[in-house]
Amino acid sequence: MTKPSRNAPFITLEGGEGTGKSTQIKLLSAWLSENNIDHVCTREPGGAPGAEEIRTMVLTGDVDRWTPMTEVLLYTASRSDHVERVIVPSIESGKWVLCDRFADSSVAYQGAGRGVGVQRVKDLQRLVLGDLKPDLTLILDIPIEVGLERAMSREGDKAVKEDRIERMGKSLHEQSREVFMEIAAEEPDRCVVVDANKSIDALQQDLRAIIVDRFGPLE
Amino acid sequence: MTKPSRNAPFITLEGGEGTGKSTQIKLLSAWLSENNIDHVCTREPGGAPGAEEIRTMVLTGDVDRWTPMTEVLLYTASRSDHVERVIVPSIESGKWVLCDRFADSSVAYQGAGRGVGVQRVKDLQRLVLGDLKPDLTLILDIPIEVGLERAMSREGDKAVKEDRIERMGKSLHEQSREVFMEIAAEEPDRCVVVDANKSIDALQQDLRAIIVDRFGPLE
Repeated sequence: MTKPSRNAPFITLEGGEGTGKSTQIKLLSAWLSENNIDHVCTREPGGAPGAEEIRTMVLTGDVDRWTPMTEVLLYTASRSDHVERVIVPSIESGKWVLCDRFADSSVAYQGAGRGVGVQRVKDLQRLVLGDLKPDLTLILDIPIEVGLERAMSREGDKAVKEDRIERMGKSLHEQSREVFMEIAAEEPDRCVVVDANKSIDALQQDLRAIIVDRFGPLE
Repeated sequence: MTKPSRNAPFITLEGGEGTGKSTQIKLLSAWLSENNIDHVCTREPGGAPGAEEIRTMVLTGDVDRWTPMTEVLLYTASRSDHVERVIVPSIESGKWVLCDRFADSSVAYQGAGRGVGVQRVKDLQRLVLGDLKPDLTLILDIPIEVGLERAMSREGDKAVKEDRIERMGKSLHEQSREVFMEIAAEEPDRCVVVDANKSIDALQQDLRAIIVDRFGPLE
Protein backbone atom coordinates (compact mmCIF):
# COMPACT_ATOMS: atom_id res chain seq x y z
CA MET A 1 0.00 0.00 0.00
CA THR A 2 1.23 3.46 -0.78
CA LYS A 3 0.96 6.27 1.67
CA PRO A 4 -2.00 8.47 0.74
CA SER A 5 -1.28 12.09 -0.16
CA ARG A 6 -3.23 14.23 2.29
CA ASN A 7 -3.32 16.46 5.32
CA ALA A 8 -5.98 14.90 7.52
CA PRO A 9 -4.33 13.00 10.35
CA PHE A 10 -4.58 9.28 10.95
CA ILE A 11 -4.70 8.74 14.72
CA THR A 12 -4.69 5.39 16.49
CA LEU A 13 -5.42 4.55 20.12
CA GLU A 14 -3.58 1.62 21.61
CA GLY A 15 -3.22 0.04 25.05
CA GLY A 16 -4.46 -2.88 27.10
CA GLU A 17 -7.92 -3.94 28.17
CA GLY A 18 -9.83 -1.42 30.29
CA THR A 19 -7.75 1.61 29.38
CA GLY A 20 -10.89 3.34 28.00
CA LYS A 21 -9.98 3.57 24.30
CA SER A 22 -13.48 3.34 22.89
CA THR A 23 -14.95 5.81 25.39
CA GLN A 24 -12.14 8.27 24.64
CA ILE A 25 -12.66 7.91 20.88
CA LYS A 26 -16.36 8.75 21.29
CA LEU A 27 -15.45 11.91 23.22
CA LEU A 28 -12.77 12.88 20.68
CA SER A 29 -15.34 12.38 17.93
CA ALA A 30 -17.81 14.70 19.70
CA TRP A 31 -15.06 17.32 20.02
CA LEU A 32 -14.13 17.06 16.31
CA SER A 33 -17.83 17.32 15.37
CA GLU A 34 -18.28 20.44 17.53
CA ASN A 35 -15.42 21.93 15.54
CA ASN A 36 -16.92 20.85 12.19
CA ILE A 37 -14.06 18.52 11.41
CA ASP A 38 -15.03 15.73 9.06
CA HIS A 39 -13.81 12.43 10.49
CA VAL A 40 -14.29 8.68 10.71
CA CYS A 41 -14.17 6.55 13.87
CA THR A 42 -13.25 2.96 13.28
CA ARG A 43 -11.78 -0.02 15.09
CA GLU A 44 -9.76 -3.17 14.70
CA PRO A 45 -10.09 -6.01 14.20
CA GLY A 46 -12.89 -5.19 11.78
CA GLY A 47 -13.93 -1.74 10.58
CA ALA A 48 -15.09 -2.79 7.08
CA PRO A 49 -17.54 -5.51 5.95
CA GLY A 50 -14.89 -8.03 4.81
CA ALA A 51 -12.67 -7.17 7.76
CA GLU A 52 -15.59 -7.78 10.14
CA GLU A 53 -16.18 -11.21 8.61
CA ILE A 54 -12.55 -12.09 9.21
CA ARG A 55 -12.81 -10.65 12.74
CA THR A 56 -15.73 -12.98 13.48
CA MET A 57 -13.74 -15.93 12.17
CA VAL A 58 -10.77 -15.08 14.41
CA LEU A 59 -12.69 -14.33 17.58
CA THR A 60 -15.18 -17.20 17.67
CA GLY A 61 -14.66 -20.89 18.42
CA ASP A 62 -12.23 -22.64 20.70
CA VAL A 63 -9.26 -20.79 22.15
CA ASP A 64 -6.92 -23.09 20.18
CA ARG A 65 -8.92 -22.86 16.94
CA TRP A 66 -6.04 -20.98 15.29
CA THR A 67 -2.33 -21.26 15.84
CA PRO A 68 -0.66 -17.95 16.74
CA MET A 69 0.81 -17.53 13.22
CA THR A 70 -2.52 -18.18 11.52
CA GLU A 71 -4.17 -15.76 13.95
CA VAL A 72 -1.76 -12.93 13.17
CA LEU A 73 -2.21 -13.54 9.42
CA LEU A 74 -5.99 -13.38 9.80
CA TYR A 75 -5.76 -10.17 11.83
CA THR A 76 -3.43 -8.74 9.21
CA ALA A 77 -5.76 -9.78 6.36
CA SER A 78 -8.57 -8.02 8.21
CA ARG A 79 -6.33 -4.95 8.59
CA SER A 80 -5.44 -4.96 4.91
CA ASP A 81 -9.14 -4.90 3.98
CA HIS A 82 -9.83 -2.16 6.53
CA VAL A 83 -6.93 -0.03 5.31
CA GLU A 84 -7.74 -0.34 1.61
CA ARG A 85 -11.53 0.00 1.92
CA VAL A 86 -11.89 2.53 4.76
CA ILE A 87 -8.74 4.14 6.16
CA VAL A 88 -6.92 5.19 2.98
CA PRO A 89 -10.09 6.35 1.13
CA SER A 90 -11.12 8.39 4.21
CA ILE A 91 -7.72 10.05 4.55
CA GLU A 92 -7.63 10.76 0.81
CA SER A 93 -11.01 12.46 0.99
CA GLY A 94 -9.64 14.73 3.74
CA LYS A 95 -11.28 13.06 6.72
CA TRP A 96 -9.50 12.56 10.03
CA VAL A 97 -9.37 8.90 11.02
CA LEU A 98 -9.59 7.79 14.67
CA CYS A 99 -8.90 4.09 14.98
CA ASP A 100 -9.33 1.90 18.08
CA ARG A 101 -6.29 -0.43 17.83
CA PHE A 102 -4.09 -0.92 14.77
CA ALA A 103 -0.84 -2.69 13.82
CA ASP A 104 0.82 -2.12 17.21
CA SER A 105 -1.80 -4.37 18.80
CA SER A 106 -0.76 -7.23 16.52
CA VAL A 107 2.88 -6.65 17.47
CA ALA A 108 1.98 -6.61 21.17
CA TYR A 109 -0.58 -9.42 21.35
CA GLN A 110 0.52 -11.89 18.69
CA GLY A 111 4.18 -10.88 18.50
CA ALA A 112 4.90 -10.99 22.23
CA GLY A 113 1.83 -12.38 23.99
CA ARG A 114 1.20 -15.29 21.64
CA GLY A 115 4.89 -15.85 20.88
CA VAL A 116 5.05 -15.28 17.12
CA GLY A 117 7.95 -12.88 17.69
CA VAL A 118 7.89 -9.09 17.92
CA GLN A 119 10.26 -8.52 14.98
CA ARG A 120 8.44 -11.04 12.80
CA VAL A 121 5.08 -9.35 13.32
CA LYS A 122 6.66 -5.93 12.73
CA ASP A 123 8.15 -7.22 9.47
CA LEU A 124 4.75 -8.59 8.45
CA GLN A 125 3.05 -5.26 9.10
CA ARG A 126 5.74 -3.42 7.16
CA LEU A 127 5.43 -5.86 4.24
CA VAL A 128 1.66 -5.39 4.09
CA LEU A 129 1.28 -1.70 4.98
CA GLY A 130 4.36 -0.35 3.21
CA ASP A 131 4.81 3.30 4.16
CA LEU A 132 1.40 3.72 5.77
CA LYS A 133 1.76 4.57 9.44
CA PRO A 134 -0.45 6.48 11.86
CA ASP A 135 0.54 10.14 12.23
CA LEU A 136 -0.11 9.87 15.94
CA THR A 137 -0.53 6.87 18.23
CA LEU A 138 -1.92 7.51 21.69
CA ILE A 139 -0.87 4.64 23.95
CA LEU A 140 -3.19 4.59 26.95
CA ASP A 141 -1.34 3.10 29.88
CA ILE A 142 -2.72 1.74 33.11
CA PRO A 143 -1.55 -0.82 35.70
CA ILE A 144 -2.61 -4.28 34.48
CA GLU A 145 -4.72 -5.00 37.59
CA VAL A 146 -6.69 -1.77 37.26
CA GLY A 147 -7.30 -2.32 33.55
CA LEU A 148 -8.49 -5.89 33.94
CA GLU A 149 -10.80 -4.91 36.81
CA ARG A 150 -12.28 -2.14 34.69
CA ALA A 151 -12.67 -4.42 31.65
CA MET A 152 -14.43 -7.04 33.74
CA SER A 153 -16.84 -4.58 35.35
CA ARG A 154 -18.06 -3.25 31.98
CA GLU A 155 -21.57 -4.01 30.73
CA GLY A 156 -21.96 -7.46 29.19
CA ASP A 157 -21.76 -10.99 30.47
CA LYS A 158 -19.27 -10.76 33.31
CA ALA A 159 -18.68 -14.51 33.46
CA VAL A 160 -17.84 -14.63 29.76
CA LYS A 161 -15.47 -11.69 30.04
CA GLU A 162 -13.72 -13.14 33.05
CA ASP A 163 -13.35 -16.42 31.26
CA ARG A 164 -11.91 -14.86 28.12
CA ILE A 165 -9.51 -12.58 29.96
CA GLU A 166 -8.43 -15.36 32.26
CA ARG A 167 -7.87 -17.78 29.41
CA MET A 168 -5.62 -15.22 27.74
CA GLY A 169 -3.51 -15.26 30.89
CA LYS A 170 -2.26 -12.29 32.85
CA SER A 171 1.26 -12.63 31.53
CA LEU A 172 -0.03 -11.94 28.02
CA HIS A 173 -1.31 -8.58 29.23
CA GLU A 174 1.99 -7.83 30.98
CA GLN A 175 4.04 -8.76 27.93
CA SER A 176 1.78 -6.67 25.69
CA ARG A 177 2.13 -3.65 27.94
CA GLU A 178 5.93 -3.95 27.79
CA VAL A 179 5.82 -4.09 23.98
CA PHE A 180 3.64 -0.99 23.78
CA MET A 181 6.25 0.81 25.91
CA GLU A 182 9.07 -0.42 23.68
CA ILE A 183 7.28 0.75 20.53
CA ALA A 184 6.74 4.16 22.15
CA ALA A 185 10.44 4.40 22.98
CA GLU A 186 11.45 3.39 19.44
CA GLU A 187 9.08 5.77 17.67
CA PRO A 188 8.80 8.91 19.78
CA ASP A 189 7.69 11.01 16.79
CA ARG A 190 4.62 8.86 16.30
CA CYS A 191 3.76 7.61 19.79
CA VAL A 192 2.73 9.32 23.01
CA VAL A 193 2.22 7.29 26.18
CA VAL A 194 -0.65 8.71 28.22
CA ASP A 195 -1.37 7.84 31.84
CA ALA A 196 -4.94 6.48 31.69
CA ASN A 197 -5.26 5.86 35.43
CA LYS A 198 -7.47 8.90 35.95
CA SER A 199 -11.05 10.07 35.35
CA ILE A 200 -12.58 9.87 31.89
CA ASP A 201 -12.76 13.66 31.67
CA ALA A 202 -9.21 14.25 32.84
CA LEU A 203 -7.88 11.70 30.32
CA GLN A 204 -9.93 13.28 27.53
CA GLN A 205 -8.43 16.68 28.30
CA ASP A 206 -4.94 15.18 28.10
CA LEU A 207 -5.68 13.57 24.72
CA ARG A 208 -7.12 16.79 23.27
CA ALA A 209 -4.07 18.70 24.46
CA ILE A 210 -1.74 16.22 22.75
CA ILE A 211 -3.72 16.44 19.49
CA VAL A 212 -3.69 20.25 19.53
CA ASP A 213 -0.01 20.21 20.33
CA ARG A 214 0.63 17.92 17.36
CA PHE A 215 -1.76 19.24 14.71
CA GLY A 216 -2.54 22.78 15.87
CA PRO A 217 -5.76 24.26 17.25
CA LEU A 218 -8.94 22.87 15.68
CA GLU A 219 -10.54 26.24 15.01
CA MET B 1 7.83 -22.43 11.58
CA THR B 2 10.86 -24.62 12.00
CA LYS B 3 11.79 -27.25 9.52
CA PRO B 4 10.74 -30.66 10.79
CA SER B 5 13.47 -33.23 11.38
CA ARG B 6 12.67 -36.22 9.15
CA ASN B 7 13.33 -38.31 6.10
CA ALA B 8 9.91 -38.57 4.43
CA PRO B 9 9.78 -36.19 1.47
CA PHE B 10 7.42 -33.27 1.11
CA ILE B 11 6.42 -33.07 -2.57
CA THR B 12 4.29 -30.34 -4.15
CA LEU B 13 2.66 -30.24 -7.57
CA GLU B 14 2.32 -26.86 -9.20
CA GLY B 15 1.20 -25.52 -12.57
CA GLY B 16 -1.74 -23.85 -14.27
CA GLU B 17 -5.35 -24.91 -14.73
CA GLY B 18 -5.88 -28.17 -16.61
CA THR B 19 -2.35 -29.51 -16.17
CA GLY B 20 -3.76 -32.59 -14.40
CA LYS B 21 -2.28 -32.11 -10.93
CA SER B 22 -5.06 -33.78 -8.95
CA THR B 23 -5.28 -36.78 -11.31
CA GLN B 24 -1.53 -37.25 -11.13
CA ILE B 25 -1.54 -37.05 -7.32
CA LYS B 26 -4.19 -39.81 -7.17
CA LEU B 27 -2.01 -42.03 -9.37
CA LEU B 28 1.13 -41.25 -7.35
CA SER B 29 -0.81 -42.11 -4.19
CA ALA B 30 -1.83 -45.49 -5.66
CA TRP B 31 1.81 -46.16 -6.55
CA LEU B 32 3.00 -45.27 -3.03
CA SER B 33 0.29 -47.49 -1.52
CA GLU B 34 1.30 -50.42 -3.74
CA ASN B 35 4.77 -50.00 -2.31
CA ASN B 36 3.48 -49.75 1.29
CA ILE B 37 4.67 -46.20 1.71
CA ASP B 38 2.72 -44.28 4.33
CA HIS B 39 1.67 -40.95 2.88
CA VAL B 40 -0.83 -38.09 2.93
CA CYS B 41 -2.41 -36.42 -0.10
CA THR B 42 -3.54 -32.88 0.50
CA ARG B 43 -4.27 -29.68 -1.38
CA GLU B 44 -4.27 -25.91 -1.16
CA PRO B 45 -6.04 -23.71 -0.49
CA GLY B 46 -7.49 -25.82 2.30
CA GLY B 47 -6.25 -29.19 3.50
CA ALA B 48 -7.22 -28.80 7.17
CA PRO B 49 -10.53 -27.82 8.82
CA GLY B 50 -9.58 -24.21 9.63
CA ALA B 51 -7.75 -23.84 6.33
CA GLU B 52 -10.86 -25.06 4.48
CA GLU B 53 -12.99 -22.46 6.25
CA ILE B 54 -10.59 -19.75 5.12
CA ARG B 55 -10.59 -21.26 1.61
CA THR B 56 -14.38 -20.95 1.47
CA MET B 57 -14.15 -17.34 2.59
CA VAL B 58 -11.60 -16.52 -0.12
CA LEU B 59 -13.28 -18.35 -2.99
CA THR B 60 -16.91 -17.34 -2.54
CA GLY B 61 -18.62 -14.02 -3.19
CA ASP B 62 -17.98 -11.31 -5.75
CA VAL B 63 -14.75 -11.31 -7.72
CA ASP B 64 -13.78 -8.00 -6.05
CA ARG B 65 -14.78 -9.15 -2.56
CA TRP B 66 -11.14 -9.06 -1.47
CA THR B 67 -8.33 -6.79 -2.60
CA PRO B 68 -5.27 -8.69 -3.91
CA MET B 69 -3.29 -8.05 -0.70
CA THR B 70 -6.10 -9.27 1.54
CA GLU B 71 -6.51 -12.31 -0.71
CA VAL B 72 -2.85 -13.31 -0.46
CA LEU B 73 -2.94 -12.86 3.32
CA LEU B 74 -6.01 -15.10 3.56
CA TYR B 75 -4.39 -17.74 1.36
CA THR B 76 -1.27 -17.53 3.52
CA ALA B 77 -3.30 -17.81 6.74
CA SER B 78 -4.93 -20.90 5.28
CA ARG B 79 -1.47 -22.26 4.38
CA SER B 80 -0.15 -21.57 7.88
CA ASP B 81 -3.00 -23.60 9.38
CA HIS B 82 -2.48 -26.39 6.85
CA VAL B 83 1.28 -26.53 7.49
CA GLU B 84 1.03 -26.54 11.27
CA ARG B 85 -1.94 -28.91 11.57
CA VAL B 86 -1.29 -31.36 8.70
CA ILE B 87 1.95 -31.03 6.74
CA VAL B 88 4.52 -30.75 9.54
CA PRO B 89 2.86 -33.38 11.80
CA SER B 90 2.66 -35.78 8.82
CA ILE B 91 6.31 -35.32 7.88
CA GLU B 92 7.36 -35.68 11.52
CA SER B 93 5.50 -38.97 11.79
CA GLY B 94 7.41 -40.24 8.75
CA LYS B 95 4.68 -39.90 6.14
CA TRP B 96 5.34 -38.66 2.64
CA VAL B 97 3.28 -35.58 1.82
CA LEU B 98 1.90 -34.96 -1.69
CA CYS B 99 0.36 -31.50 -1.92
CA ASP B 100 -1.69 -30.07 -4.80
CA ARG B 101 -0.43 -26.45 -4.95
CA PHE B 102 1.60 -24.68 -2.25
CA ALA B 103 3.43 -21.38 -1.74
CA ASP B 104 4.57 -21.10 -5.38
CA SER B 105 0.92 -20.75 -6.41
CA SER B 106 0.57 -17.67 -4.21
CA VAL B 107 3.71 -16.19 -5.75
CA ALA B 108 2.41 -16.91 -9.26
CA TYR B 109 -1.27 -15.98 -8.88
CA GLN B 110 -1.29 -13.19 -6.32
CA GLY B 111 2.29 -11.99 -6.79
CA ALA B 112 2.22 -11.70 -10.57
CA GLY B 113 -1.35 -12.31 -11.74
CA ARG B 114 -3.08 -10.12 -9.17
CA GLY B 115 -0.26 -7.58 -8.99
CA VAL B 116 0.81 -7.78 -5.34
CA GLY B 117 4.41 -8.22 -6.48
CA VAL B 118 6.41 -11.43 -6.87
CA GLN B 119 9.14 -10.46 -4.39
CA ARG B 120 6.61 -9.24 -1.84
CA VAL B 121 4.70 -12.53 -1.89
CA LYS B 122 7.97 -14.49 -1.73
CA ASP B 123 9.01 -12.43 1.31
CA LEU B 124 5.63 -13.10 2.92
CA GLN B 125 5.96 -16.87 2.40
CA ARG B 126 9.48 -16.81 3.80
CA LEU B 127 8.37 -14.82 6.83
CA VAL B 128 5.57 -17.28 7.57
CA LEU B 129 7.14 -20.60 6.57
CA GLY B 130 10.68 -19.94 7.74
CA ASP B 131 12.91 -22.77 6.57
CA LEU B 132 10.09 -25.09 5.51
CA LYS B 133 10.25 -25.77 1.78
CA PRO B 134 9.11 -28.71 -0.33
CA ASP B 135 11.88 -31.23 -1.01
CA LEU B 136 10.60 -31.53 -4.57
CA THR B 137 8.25 -29.38 -6.59
CA LEU B 138 6.91 -30.85 -9.82
CA ILE B 139 5.83 -28.00 -12.08
CA LEU B 140 3.41 -29.38 -14.66
CA ASP B 141 3.65 -27.26 -17.78
CA ILE B 142 1.25 -27.06 -20.67
CA PRO B 143 0.41 -24.39 -23.28
CA ILE B 144 -2.19 -22.00 -21.76
CA GLU B 145 -4.79 -22.73 -24.47
CA VAL B 146 -4.58 -26.50 -23.97
CA GLY B 147 -4.79 -26.20 -20.19
CA LEU B 148 -7.80 -23.87 -20.22
CA GLU B 149 -9.62 -26.10 -22.70
CA ARG B 150 -8.96 -29.14 -20.52
CA ALA B 151 -10.06 -27.31 -17.37
CA MET B 152 -13.27 -26.20 -19.03
CA SER B 153 -14.15 -29.66 -20.32
CA ARG B 154 -13.90 -31.26 -16.88
CA GLU B 155 -16.99 -32.46 -15.06
CA GLY B 156 -18.99 -29.70 -13.36
CA ASP B 157 -20.97 -26.73 -14.49
CA LYS B 158 -19.24 -25.67 -17.70
CA ALA B 159 -20.85 -22.22 -17.80
CA VAL B 160 -19.64 -21.48 -14.27
CA LYS B 161 -16.13 -22.68 -15.07
CA GLU B 162 -15.96 -20.64 -18.26
CA ASP B 163 -17.18 -17.61 -16.38
CA ARG B 164 -14.65 -17.99 -13.59
CA ILE B 165 -11.71 -18.65 -15.88
CA GLU B 166 -12.69 -15.83 -18.18
CA ARG B 167 -13.10 -13.39 -15.33
CA MET B 168 -9.59 -14.20 -14.16
CA GLY B 169 -8.36 -13.14 -17.59
CA LYS B 170 -6.05 -15.05 -19.85
CA SER B 171 -3.12 -12.76 -19.10
CA LEU B 172 -3.24 -13.88 -15.46
CA HIS B 173 -2.62 -17.45 -16.60
CA GLU B 174 0.21 -16.34 -18.89
CA GLN B 175 1.85 -14.30 -16.14
CA SER B 176 1.51 -17.17 -13.69
CA ARG B 177 3.11 -19.60 -16.12
CA GLU B 178 6.06 -17.26 -16.54
CA VAL B 179 6.50 -17.03 -12.77
CA PHE B 180 6.46 -20.80 -12.36
CA MET B 181 9.24 -20.98 -14.97
CA GLU B 182 11.22 -18.27 -13.16
CA ILE B 183 10.92 -20.09 -9.83
CA ALA B 184 12.09 -23.32 -11.49
CA ALA B 185 15.12 -21.51 -12.91
CA GLU B 186 15.96 -19.94 -9.55
CA GLU B 187 15.61 -23.15 -7.54
CA PRO B 188 16.78 -26.03 -9.74
CA ASP B 189 17.50 -28.24 -6.71
CA ARG B 190 13.87 -28.10 -5.63
CA CYS B 191 11.93 -27.71 -8.88
CA VAL B 192 11.52 -29.87 -11.96
CA VAL B 193 9.47 -28.60 -14.90
CA VAL B 194 7.56 -31.47 -16.52
CA ASP B 195 5.92 -31.33 -19.94
CA ALA B 196 2.27 -32.14 -19.15
CA ASN B 197 1.06 -31.98 -22.75
CA LYS B 198 0.86 -35.76 -23.06
CA SER B 199 -1.35 -38.66 -21.96
CA ILE B 200 -2.15 -39.18 -18.29
CA ASP B 201 -0.17 -42.42 -18.23
CA ALA B 202 2.87 -41.01 -19.98
CA LEU B 203 2.95 -38.05 -17.59
CA GLN B 204 2.59 -40.36 -14.60
CA GLN B 205 5.58 -42.40 -15.76
CA ASP B 206 7.62 -39.20 -16.04
CA LEU B 207 6.68 -38.11 -12.52
CA ARG B 208 7.51 -41.52 -11.03
CA ALA B 209 10.88 -41.50 -12.77
CA ILE B 210 11.68 -38.07 -11.33
CA ILE B 211 10.69 -39.18 -7.82
CA VAL B 212 12.82 -42.33 -8.05
CA ASP B 213 15.70 -40.31 -9.42
CA ARG B 214 15.42 -37.90 -6.49
CA PHE B 215 14.61 -40.20 -3.55
CA GLY B 216 15.74 -43.63 -4.73
CA PRO B 217 13.71 -46.71 -5.67
CA LEU B 218 10.60 -47.22 -3.55
CA GLU B 219 11.26 -50.88 -2.78
